[in-house]
Amino acid sequence: MIQAGIIGGAGYTAGELIRLLLHHSKVNINFVFSTSNAGNKISSVHQDLVGDTEMIFSNSIDTTIDVLFLCLGHGNSKAFLAKHTFSETTKIIDLSNDFRLQKDAIFKDKIFVYGLPELQKEAIKKAHYIANPGCFASAIQLALLPLAHHELLKNDVHINAVTGATGAGTSLSKTTHFTWRDTNFSHYKPFTHQHLGEIHQTVQQLQTDFNSEINFMPNRGNFSRGIFATAYTKFEGNLEEAKKLYSDFYKDAKFTFVSDEEIHLKQVVNTNKCLLHLHKHEDKLLITSIIDNLLKGASGQAVQNMNLLFGFDETEGLQLKANFF
Amino acid sequence: MIQAGIIGGAGYTAGELIRLLLHHSKVNINFVFSTSNAGNKISSVHQDLVGDTEMIFSNSIDTTIDVLFLCLGHGNSKAFLAKHTFSETTKIIDLSNDFRLQKDAIFKDKIFVYGLPELQKEAIKKAHYIANPGCFASAIQLALLPLAHHELLKNDVHINAVTGATGAGTSLSKTTHFTWRDTNFSHYKPFTHQHLGEIHQTVQQLQTDFNSEINFMPNRGNFSRGIFATAYTKFEGNLEEAKKLYSDFYKDAKFTFVSDEEIHLKQVVNTNKCLLHLHKHEDKLLITSIIDNLLKGASGQAVQNMNLLFGFDETEGLQLKANFF
Amino acid sequence: MIQAGIIGGAGYTAGELIRLLLHHSKVNINFVFSTSNAGNKISSVHQDLVGDTEMIFSNSIDTTIDVLFLCLGHGNSKAFLAKHTFSETTKIIDLSNDFRLQKDAIFKDKIFVYGLPELQKEAIKKAHYIANPGCFASAIQLALLPLAHHELLKNDVHINAVTGATGAGTSLSKTTHFTWRDTNFSHYKPFTHQHLGEIHQTVQQLQTDFNSEINFMPNRGNFSRGIFATAYTKFEGNLEEAKKLYSDFYKDAKFTFVSDEEIHLKQVVNTNKCLLHLHKHEDKLLITSIIDNLLKGASGQAVQNMNLLFGFDETEGLQLKANFF
Amino acid sequence: MIQAGIIGGAGYTAGELIRLLLHHSKVNINFVFSTSNAGNKISSVHQDLVGDTEMIFSNSIDTTIDVLFLCLGHGNSKAFLAKHTFSETTKIIDLSNDFRLQKDAIFKDKIFVYGLPELQKEAIKKAHYIANPGCFASAIQLALLPLAHHELLKNDVHINAVTGATGAGTSLSKTTHFTWRDTNFSHYKPFTHQHLGEIHQTVQQLQTDFNSEINFMPNRGNFSRGIFATAYTKFEGNLEEAKKLYSDFYKDAKFTFVSDEEIHLKQVVNTNKCLLHLHKHEDKLLITSIIDNLLKGASGQAVQNMNLLFGFDETEGLQLKANFF
Repeated sequence: MIQAGIIGGAGYTAGELIRLLLHHSKVNINFVFSTSNAGNKISSVHQDLVGDTEMIFSNSIDTTIDVLFLCLGHGNSKAFLAKHTFSETTKIIDLSNDFRLQKDAIFKDKIFVYGLPELQKEAIKKAHYIANPGCFASAIQLALLPLAHHELLKNDVHINAVTGATGAGTSLSKTTHFTWRDTNFSHYKPFTHQHLGEIHQTVQQLQTDFNSEINFMPNRGNFSRGIFATAYTKFEGNLEEAKKLYSDFYKDAKFTFVSDEEIHLKQVVNTNKCLLHLHKHEDKLLITSIIDNLLKGASGQAVQNMNLLFGFDETEGLQLKANFF
Repeated sequence: MIQAGIIGGAGYTAGELIRLLLHHSKVNINFVFSTSNAGNKISSVHQDLVGDTEMIFSNSIDTTIDVLFLCLGHGNSKAFLAKHTFSETTKIIDLSNDFRLQKDAIFKDKIFVYGLPELQKEAIKKAHYIANPGCFASAIQLALLPLAHHELLKNDVHINAVTGATGAGTSLSKTTHFTWRDTNFSHYKPFTHQHLGEIHQTVQQLQTDFNSEINFMPNRGNFSRGIFATAYTKFEGNLEEAKKLYSDFYKDAKFTFVSDEEIHLKQVVNTNKCLLHLHKHEDKLLITSIIDNLLKGASGQAVQNMNLLFGFDETEGLQLKANFF
Repeated sequence: MIQAGIIGGAGYTAGELIRLLLHHSKVNINFVFSTSNAGNKISSVHQDLVGDTEMIFSNSIDTTIDVLFLCLGHGNSKAFLAKHTFSETTKIIDLSNDFRLQKDAIFKDKIFVYGLPELQKEAIKKAHYIANPGCFASAIQLALLPLAHHELLKNDVHINAVTGATGAGTSLSKTTHFTWRDTNFSHYKPFTHQHLGEIHQTVQQLQTDFNSEINFMPNRGNFSRGIFATAYTKFEGNLEEAKKLYSDFYKDAKFTFVSDEEIHLKQVVNTNKCLLHLHKHEDKLLITSIIDNLLKGASGQAVQNMNLLFGFDETEGLQLKANFF
Repeated sequence: MIQAGIIGGAGYTAGELIRLLLHHSKVNINFVFSTSNAGNKISSVHQDLVGDTEMIFSNSIDTTIDVLFLCLGHGNSKAFLAKHTFSETTKIIDLSNDFRLQKDAIFKDKIFVYGLPELQKEAIKKAHYIANPGCFASAIQLALLPLAHHELLKNDVHINAVTGATGAGTSLSKTTHFTWRDTNFSHYKPFTHQHLGEIHQTVQQLQTDFNSEINFMPNRGNFSRGIFATAYTKFEGNLEEAKKLYSDFYKDAKFTFVSDEEIHLKQVVNTNKCLLHLHKHEDKLLITSIIDNLLKGASGQAVQNMNLLFGFDETEGLQLKANFF
């Protein structure tokens, strides 16, 4: 049993991590650090855990643990690591966007590897420090990886994606108020969402000559969990060729699958899966991609990365029962 | 055209009042007072009004207007009227609970009449100052009035009611956060909800010997608008007798109707109606009562009271298209 | 008071028409024809109407009425008019897609005019027969009309739109089952939705040299009412020029408004309005367009067309209180 | 690994069973029988299972399997067992209401034991045939067991409970249509719900002198999963005594917990847990009880019973990650 610590324990992603790790056969949660909740029962915040754990939020940190998860707001991971020193053997998985871009990936003596297993599983296995991808970035990259890998992104890409309210975090705001969001729909940050950085970086890493536009329209859906993304671009081959390309690329992926049938969001909610569906119309290939923003888009992928870092079975602790309804 | 002023203009009930009065043929909105929003467009807060009005929230009050609506938080109406003096001809309709109980009904030189038209339409017509009933209180009283009127409440009454999230007001809180409330259900203040005061007062006014218990369980539903209430108690007559009693009692009511069919909440959402349904099981009479908490439960009833105060047609400005879906 | 008849009275669009016409000051509903419900109370199907009307679904048709609304499934309007003959003075508004395209617009001796008031109000005023536009088609055309009018659609247009479940009609199907649709998201008919025909026809009518692609991705949202549509395309001018172009084009429109603020779906739900918002990013103009699919997208626009046909005020019966929450 | 078969594989409860058993370490799903879907992939119906299993619905039945789950509509289990003969060693768990009442519990040579582990774990361990409790019945019995066990149910009990749409099964009906159910609320079968039989039977088994009324009002909520139930009755002791009584009674329960904090439905959704909360007001004890209707209310409890029948750890395969949001 390795020992795990979680920093920023009161948020959504920390909650999901705790839920996952409590039932992980190789991990013991050593501490869950929260300044605002220190001394309180974890189940007083993550209230579904009543009956599952009597753990208390900690106000102290064991710097010798095996794996540390940083579940802090964007910008705060860097500050935290500047202030705290951990054992050289402590592996760190950061869920913020602080270390995802090449220009941010080296911090003090640490080199952060971008933790998208479908992109670079071997690099992750050898890493010590992981920058866990963003939620939209995960759904969208998984839609584009096979094309970029084969250098087939020759034209503009048009992406529309909808996310659940958990994507906005636990803080209260006008657009997360129930009376505003219920039965509503809206978009935000059109063409400029911060996850475009990661997406561009990965596409260019695979297809260095990529110089088209990635047009990304993010939307707020009136549900709590999940991302439904569509991407289309020109593609010369036929549908069968596209399917083969995707199936081959993901043949060893443990959580990313290509569905022959049309897909809908609830197929993946509360799982670590990404489902993809391909459709060809005239010269355009449409790729639909769905994930749970808190699992494959955050904490589930973090556990997947942890499994790779420690040589566990990649699916350990992640064979989750979908909610589906 | 009478001139109307609204105090506390940024909240839900003020928003509904503005929506109603903008299309009322006998009323001109003179000002909408809001300290927090003074100078801003009304449509910047009540955003569905883009295209309907260019009015600005006011920071000044015309004390000679014909009718004043107080849409302040509970406790603040008294403070407001202590500070501001209006013309003797200004009629005031208060939507808070400050003046609903007999013990609170006289304030300075003002006598507030409890504004439930189905209870005392004639008294309302003659009044100058109206205490507009609470939302749960409206739904529940309309379920019990005919029985109390005939002094037939001889046993304990068991009430369960569910309200939409607008019942909790515009302020952000844990239980109005979308991720908490969506697909959730909970209760609050079991047996002690503040509207019990109004309900008891009315029942005892009609049936002075009433000395049973009114057990009231309020719940939070995962919808934004509406109250669905059930009440049951022992009743000696048969179903037909009950129906006749209710139909007779409400035969002149403009907005309260008895449905022979089972009812469901969306039949009244976005209308000023109350629908009632009666069911007899053995010795128990079950009364189901549904209203829109912001209309018949607040602003719609306030306009109905205004119509009565000024001798307008009682339904003027209140013939609303239900949302239904 | 003109006399109106409704054919296909049990569906969503007929229900909305009845709700609107019951409160229209110039119209009397003469009959609501429904084969499946003849003899039943209208309020047994459109249950929010309990207390509003005692009308019964009819199994006979008065062929001398002033205006006839056809609320039949697509393909059935033609069959109905082939079988029934109405007075020469009877004006007909068809809500199906049977007569929307030029190639279908002449049927027997009748010439159907496409009923989008923002496109051709004068032609509608002079018409006898109206083909009422589709719901998606309304939202999307209103987003594109000013550009097409100025022949500024020089490049591909990328459209993504989400519709509520009422868009699928009253019939029960897998994707309208609550357990499937609740908290779910999906798309359908990518790039091939039937409303593309109307949209192309209008664009080409205004800008004859248009030869780019209109890429349209329709989605199913987990709400009942409303369409939220985005469209983007290259546009040479700056944002202010775009705003001026749209404001000028819609300066006399009674229900279509340009909002300076970002918009969200519930601003228009249960109203006949279309709100538009413009955003410029680099060389792309993003137009967001929202309507209620059953009102501006169907029955509300049908009443607007009726008002134009009979010389009534265009807004008569359509000054609706938004639900907003 | 024991071999399991499932009859009636296309419904909600079968879907949940498959989801649970696929990850159960001691069970292999031998066949999933479905007449309507024979030959189709299981993941074509239970679409979240894409990537998890390639199994096909079977049209043949292995009568020598170790455990058989009957997921048939009420009334059909009896008919099925009349037609099919299984090995003497095959244990059977029936999820319908066919064998729940004493009068129905013996069928041919089979004696069905009522499968509520908190009531009679030892009897279940020794049984061969289990009648799995109803969903409402589970939530309500778990609220009342400690009182009945101590013969403290001396007065009428008043119960109100809300269920999600999955409670109504997969068939399409007016009240499961999205446009009807979304943001709606309604009740059904007031005082006469079929689960009252089981509840009365259990109460009387524990407290033979019970002769008060159990008033049960079932409601339809606008969510897909879960039951939120409240029950109140007179109770002489104070809150601490009530808490002790419940905590003691459930001290060995693996899935039923008493929460000191108020509870809300989503704490248990997608888990096999029942959470209880106690509140005392004057002479009344209020018990709130929440479960997932498809898990603790159906398939989760069926697996729990299977674990007991075969001597597995009672929680095996049931340590589920809650959805929570």
